[in-house]
Amino acid sequence: MGCVQSFRELCDRQKNTNVRLSLPAVCIVWQTAMIILFGVFIRYNEESSPRWVEYRKAKNISSDIENDFYFRYPSFQDVHVMIFVGFGFLMTFLKRYSFGAVGFNFLIAAFGLQWALLMQGWFHSLDYSDGKIKIGIENLINADFCVAGCLIAYGAVLGKVSPVQLMVLTLFGITLFAVEEYIILDLIHAKDAGGSMVIHTFGGYYGLSISWMLYRPNLDQSSRLQGSVYHSDVFAMIGTLFLWMFWPSFNSAITDHGDGQHRAAINTYLALAATVLTTVAVSSLFQKHGKLDMVHIQNSTLAGGVAVGTAAEFMLMPYGSLIVGFCCGIVSTLGYIYLTPFMEKYMKIQDTCGIHNLHAMPGVIGGIVGAITAAAASESVYGHEGLINTFDFEGEFKDMVPTRQGGHQAAGLCVAICFGVGGVTQLPIWGDAADDNCFDDEAYWEVPDDEETFPQVPQYNNHMRNKDV
Amino acid sequence: MGCVQSFRELCDRQKNTNVRLSLPAVCIVWQTAMIILFGVFIRYNEESSPRWVEYRKAKNISSDIENDFYFRYPSFQDVHVMIFVGFGFLMTFLKRYSFGAVGFNFLIAAFGLQWALLMQGWFHSLDYSDGKIKIGIENLINADFCVAGCLIAYGAVLGKVSPVQLMVLTLFGITLFAVEEYIILDLIHAKDAGGSMVIHTFGGYYGLSISWMLYRPNLDQSSRLQGSVYHSDVFAMIGTLFLWMFWPSFNSAITDHGDGQHRAAINTYLALAATVLTTVAVSSLFQKHGKLDMVHIQNSTLAGGVAVGTAAEFMLMPYGSLIVGFCCGIVSTLGYIYLTPFMEKYMKIQDTCGIHNLHAMPGVIGGIVGAITAAAASESVYGHEGLINTFDFEGEFKDMVPTRQGGHQAAGLCVAICFGVGGVTQLPIWGDAADDNCFDDEAYWEVPDDEETFPQVPQYNNHMRNKDV
Amino acid sequence: MGCVQSFRELCDRQKNTNVRLSLPAVCIVWQTAMIILFGVFIRYNEESSPRWVEYRKAKNISSDIENDFYFRYPSFQDVHVMIFVGFGFLMTFLKRYSFGAVGFNFLIAAFGLQWALLMQGWFHSLDYSDGKIKIGIENLINADFCVAGCLIAYGAVLGKVSPVQLMVLTLFGITLFAVEEYIILDLIHAKDAGGSMVIHTFGGYYGLSISWMLYRPNLDQSSRLQGSVYHSDVFAMIGTLFLWMFWPSFNSAITDHGDGQHRAAINTYLALAATVLTTVAVSSLFQKHGKLDMVHIQNSTLAGGVAVGTAAEFMLMPYGSLIVGFCCGIVSTLGYIYLTPFMEKYMKIQDTCGIHNLHAMPGVIGGIVGAITAAAASESVYGHEGLINTFDFEGEFKDMVPTRQGGHQAAGLCVAICFGVGGVTQLPIWGDAADDNCFDDEAYWEVPDDEETFPQVPQYNNHMRNKDV
Repeated sequence: MGCVQSFRELCDRQKNTNVRLSLPAVCIVWQTAMIILFGVFIRYNEESSPRWVEYRKAKNISSDIENDFYFRYPSFQDVHVMIFVGFGFLMTFLKRYSFGAVGFNFLIAAFGLQWALLMQGWFHSLDYSDGKIKIGIENLINADFCVAGCLIAYGAVLGKVSPVQLMVLTLFGITLFAVEEYIILDLIHAKDAGGSMVIHTFGGYYGLSISWMLYRPNLDQSSRLQGSVYHSDVFAMIGTLFLWMFWPSFNSAITDHGDGQHRAAINTYLALAATVLTTVAVSSLFQKHGKLDMVHIQNSTLAGGVAVGTAAEFMLMPYGSLIVGFCCGIVSTLGYIYLTPFMEKYMKIQDTCGIHNLHAMPGVIGGIVGAITAAAASESVYGHEGLINTFDFEGEFKDMVPTRQGGHQAAGLCVAICFGVGGVTQLPIWGDAADDNCFDDEAYWEVPDDEETFPQVPQYNNHMRNKDV
Repeated sequence: MGCVQSFRELCDRQKNTNVRLSLPAVCIVWQTAMIILFGVFIRYNEESSPRWVEYRKAKNISSDIENDFYFRYPSFQDVHVMIFVGFGFLMTFLKRYSFGAVGFNFLIAAFGLQWALLMQGWFHSLDYSDGKIKIGIENLINADFCVAGCLIAYGAVLGKVSPVQLMVLTLFGITLFAVEEYIILDLIHAKDAGGSMVIHTFGGYYGLSISWMLYRPNLDQSSRLQGSVYHSDVFAMIGTLFLWMFWPSFNSAITDHGDGQHRAAINTYLALAATVLTTVAVSSLFQKHGKLDMVHIQNSTLAGGVAVGTAAEFMLMPYGSLIVGFCCGIVSTLGYIYLTPFMEKYMKIQDTCGIHNLHAMPGVIGGIVGAITAAAASESVYGHEGLINTFDFEGEFKDMVPTRQGGHQAAGLCVAICFGVGGVTQLPIWGDAADDNCFDDEAYWEVPDDEETFPQVPQYNNHMRNKDV
Repeated sequence: MGCVQSFRELCDRQKNTNVRLSLPAVCIVWQTAMIILFGVFIRYNEESSPRWVEYRKAKNISSDIENDFYFRYPSFQDVHVMIFVGFGFLMTFLKRYSFGAVGFNFLIAAFGLQWALLMQGWFHSLDYSDGKIKIGIENLINADFCVAGCLIAYGAVLGKVSPVQLMVLTLFGITLFAVEEYIILDLIHAKDAGGSMVIHTFGGYYGLSISWMLYRPNLDQSSRLQGSVYHSDVFAMIGTLFLWMFWPSFNSAITDHGDGQHRAAINTYLALAATVLTTVAVSSLFQKHGKLDMVHIQNSTLAGGVAVGTAAEFMLMPYGSLIVGFCCGIVSTLGYIYLTPFMEKYMKIQDTCGIHNLHAMPGVIGGIVGAITAAAASESVYGHEGLINTFDFEGEFKDMVPTRQGGHQAAGLCVAICFGVGGVTQLPIWGDAADDNCFDDEAYWEVPDDEETFPQVPQYNNHMRNKDV
């Protein structure tokens, strides 16, 4: 990480937005490092290697369709869409930062998933017989999940950081994530199918702590660009809808085969539906003339999916899912109306996308719901085998009981919050930040000159924007 | 439903577009009702509950992969995309009603699917042993289907109704749908895999009858906004394409496992391909200079998917699918050119999206094609078991023969039309409607001020639009 | 093909962009021909016909889930999205050619897939017992693949040809493709899962050879329209991302059940991730001020998916995939910076979308990587059965060895290049082309008048654009 710091210094020394040396250097060097580490560590697992035929026969598996690929690939592709189109387009709402939203999201997700395969692999998929990480479809899904945590954090600093800073944010974020996840899932033995705690709570607080570090007192100098235009709001709805629609796949992607995936999808579907109605209700109620605010529709409608993440695979019951969604729509929308301005004014946290309302708070709610649902589990509801399968009361945890599992869930939530807020310890490496050039694609992108689209506009303003194509 | 009416009166009394009390009230009260009803009635079925392990062993099912989830989940997600992105974006073509198109589509679909789970559940999935509705992935698909009927109806009144009216339209629409579906599929024993009759014919005529009730003689006062702009037409193509691409999933989502789903997907794929060519042909032929009209490309290209809905799982044969698509592209495009203006001028039916051409007419064609294909079925083509499986000639219908099945299909079509047109009986609850404020997001949405996007436009017009953010 | 020529003459005689007779005639006549040919030749195969029940029992298949539909349908739908939304929206970057990009892509893909089902069917799926082509889900995927070759070619001539010319391009392209594919896959016995050679190399050179034939020395007359605007670049990112995300499905759609599909998806996922980083690096390094160029991000980020196409199902190893992606990001971006201007200036090849950099070069790299990987295969890595399964060393090729297979792969690549460049032999049928009206939707589409979107613009310019709606 010494090299990280030296790149940052290189960048800071120039005191401007020129990333012509630092960005290519980071991309090339880090990608080369990935290739070397993959060469040393990463191999196919028994279901993705040509030895599957022999493995299948040895394990007496009757058909290729029982390869894990067919259980998880459709969900994987949906999750992949959420990461790249969902998160990317959700952030295109700013009038002049759509390139940065979609493009940098693309960049850091592409890097993050490689680093995540390694970090998560060392913790979860290391084959001790040969020291290699063996990967299959489930690893790809987990890498996407890990990336999601960093993309959430990006939402808090959207428009205020350089792509090099984002790469550093991702490198550290993935690393923290993998450690946190190992502690929560393996050591504490908490369950977190959709990552309410591991992904959303952690990612939310990680982003907020970085945004606090990068506080810009004069951000209102960029306020001209800190809003949406009509079509940018429609673009953002593409992100919203793909996140909303595919969230059942997100929460069910790595749950147990069979009823586990089935139930997680149903619970998420229901929670999200309820969230839409309460979001609309609160948005209308708290605005002059009852007009709806696109910010709420774009974001708060998703809060139910976050909050049902942990408990999606438990017996939350359909009405339970609706209740969770109902509450989160209200909490999240009120957060946008009251909490975000409060945090900016009094706590020096500028949260561009309002990730506190969409991820952090609903994530905490999700952790609590998960703990309660786990503690309330019983054999009469789950059946004997069902209870063991759902909570993995096996191996060293075979004497676990639901009430104690509830306590472990709560402990997991605390760890997630601590790791998120703990991002603050990285303070030294984040330099000062200039206040202008925020929310403007001009800083890092070749932006096309738009005059030709509107032939009816008089010609005297053709050369008002300096272009250096 | 008394409460519905009182909300409407509340809203009407104000004689304007302010929905600040009525919209939140409807959303909160109805969502609360959903939670209570779900609490009383809805439970997981044996494939989504933790008792699946025991069920599997009892039924001697060899692998988790035979859980219905894996047969239907990919299709479900595609259908989900059609409902939210497909229908939502298809309606964004208006220059200033994209928020309303995507946003209200989102709202009513999220409410509708909950109510549909209940209504369809009472008719189809009630477990008489304990009085509960047991849901699984197939119920989610059917709920989405049910919602589709209401979204079709929304197309007819797009831009002319308030969100509260849309919620009422959805409540009544879902209720009628569930009754109609029960009569057609269960009592009459018609088959309708892709819902040509049940969804499209019903939804089309339901929307048209409501549009007739809400006739606005002075709608041309809003004509300034009743068109598209360049980018809104591109947004609408997102809707068109996601509907077009995923239609094979729509028509195959709830057909029989194995060849039933396989064949339905192939037939739909082919019918849609043929429709594109004849739509382009007719659109070019009937325009000055042979230029293509985006309205036709956005809508009529989908007519083949509608029309092949009923017969998709039958032995329609690949060339049969092409013929159906061929005809529908022509009929639908001619409908846009001649019928829509005629209906507005002489029948007082203002059909914003032209659902008569995209859903109602092709739906009727689909019903007829289904009846003919069913009547022509024979054991020599289907095989003995194949015929029984495809048409469910089992139980009380085990003496059914194909020709009689054809008659039942025709009867089903008539029921669908009657229920659709029967929407007119709701006349009393729909108040008068003002003629201004149509097709304008300003009425119900906080719309961003766009001037900053175009820095080259002189500054003297900064404050021409009243904003009350 | 005499009729093709006569339509072209009909069109040329009018010396303008009026396609009012030619376009409808081509669409109706060709679609009718399709119906007749489908009637004569195309039937359902045993997995999509109602006789599946009997077939299943005869073959002792234990469950419907082993129908090929469930192995391939999710991938098919992803490929379908790539063809219609991916390719379509990728080309919307031009400021005034979005209708043509999405719309003509839609038209030629819908025609192409029908013709591809026939052409590929005659070569690969003909049932000699009854002279019929038996189709199932794999045929639909292959038809989409075949169409992809033509859509790649469309990229080279985007904005410079009429829809009738595009239909001819597609008819010839599909025909050449099917022959080339038969030679490469069946006669030479090369493997090409993701079509690096068969689809991308062929499609790339086919498009370039047609672009060379249609060289317009005065194209700079349209240069006013030969760029993007802000929102058109965001639309293009929709295409980029759906191609990028679903490319693992593309490369794994028709590979072997089980580990074949699994491994192909992993390799493609990794190669694409690496490409993003090197594309960003090179784009930033070679621009003034280090600003990123949207053209590179939209296109070069996809090169890794192209280049890993052939070897995706082999034991390329995860680090091997990263290396391929690493190199292709660099090569492709440098191609956009240096090669495209060079080719236009000195070789008379105007390549609108830069398909040489995105498809042709990465395709050739993919062919070479495939040859090397195949030649290096060994039983110690693949296992005895794995080697036979992966390379189909069966039947008449059961004595094949990996090194010789490498030679066959190289031969396949040469055939693909020859067939692509061989498109030049069609020179006589492509008439001269006018230099104006390029890159302008006005030529073939009814384009809405945009003034109403911008109410703040003074009214004196309302009637500057001639409309004939």
